[in-house]
Amino acid sequence: MDLYSGYINKLIEELAALPGIGSKSAQRLAFHIINMPKARVERLSNVILDAKANVRYCKECYTLTDQEICPVCANAKRDHGMIMVVENTRDLAAYEKTGKYVGVYHVLHGAISPMIGIGPGDIKLKELMQRLEGEVDEVIIATNSSLEGETTAMYISKLIKPTGIKVTRIASGVPVGGDLEYIDEVTLLRALEGRVEL
Amino acid sequence: MDLYSGYINKLIEELAALPGIGSKSAQRLAFHIINMPKARVERLSNVILDAKANVRYCKECYTLTDQEICPVCANAKRDHGMIMVVENTRDLAAYEKTGKYVGVYHVLHGAISPMIGIGPGDIKLKELMQRLEGEVDEVIIATNSSLEGETTAMYISKLIKPTGIKVTRIASGVPVGGDLEYIDEVTLLRALEGRVEL
Repeated sequence: MDLYSGYINKLIEELAALPGIGSKSAQRLAFHIINMPKARVERLSNVILDAKANVRYCKECYTLTDQEICPVCANAKRDHGMIMVVENTRDLAAYEKTGKYVGVYHVLHGAISPMIGIGPGDIKLKELMQRLEGEVDEVIIATNSSLEGETTAMYISKLIKPTGIKVTRIASGVPVGGDLEYIDEVTLLRALEGRVEL
Repeated sequence: MDLYSGYINKLIEELAALPGIGSKSAQRLAFHIINMPKARVERLSNVILDAKANVRYCKECYTLTDQEICPVCANAKRDHGMIMVVENTRDLAAYEKTGKYVGVYHVLHGAISPMIGIGPGDIKLKELMQRLEGEVDEVIIATNSSLEGETTAMYISKLIKPTGIKVTRIASGVPVGGDLEYIDEVTLLRALEGRVEL
């Protein structure tokens, strides 16, 4: 739209490139941002830069954190012999919110998906296998119950089986096709309790 | 959520404060932003600042623009004696996209809404009345067909009537309760053609 300022157009363009934001929402957001007080606009701009600059992977579990080692991995009271494998940090947060899981995590940052060209080498799988060289009693696979999540679960279980380490999959309490982060805590807990050995 | 980094939490907070973005969307967006290439994050951060710094009100019609006078008002071919009053720049853009309106605009930046404490003094109404001291043949009121939009239309028409200037309202082709910016161009044109004198 030529009638908007070039500055507005650029802002709308950048916002529309974000996931889940269509062109109408991007317009709404852009005008909202322009009408915000200058101090708030600067804060928004800065938190974006700060988050990018300061957030990195935990050296143990690869979740996003601003420390060398994330709070979960740094906690000596957690069971470091029990590793729950999740697709991303939001899924970790979902399980962490139940407050009942005592083990640690491993964040894959994705799931195997031949359809869009994501193979085992594109997720943090090598890093998981390296961790298993330490003292690990059980690996709980908590990838989503989507096609990609199930594929990833099967792949990981086949990879780990030869090591003799116990591999479990969270129970089918999680609705098929569901995304972990949108599921209520009770269901998440039930799925954890009902986990079965693969 | 304490388990996220403080930097992530701050970003989620700022994003969730934007209109139409819930806490789940804010989380998704935040992680997406953190995973974007550094250059794109910087671009996003900069366009936000640039838009805020460079966008201001057109001195004539008060639409958002990066020039003293917006392209519509600066265009000598437009009929400057015909002023369409809209609630915001997005509504102006909606009519401008029809490509058939030859007059100019006046952007109120809001609508009268006693419910949320927005009175005639809180929108660009005084500025509209000042423009009517010049040579104006017709004022077309194109506020939304919501309660606030209708209230504003009635208020403006009563204000202008004594000046003898023709006041019209876009026809009810616009669905009741609808928001101008979401309406298709044909309906917008029909509403313009069927405008009636108030």
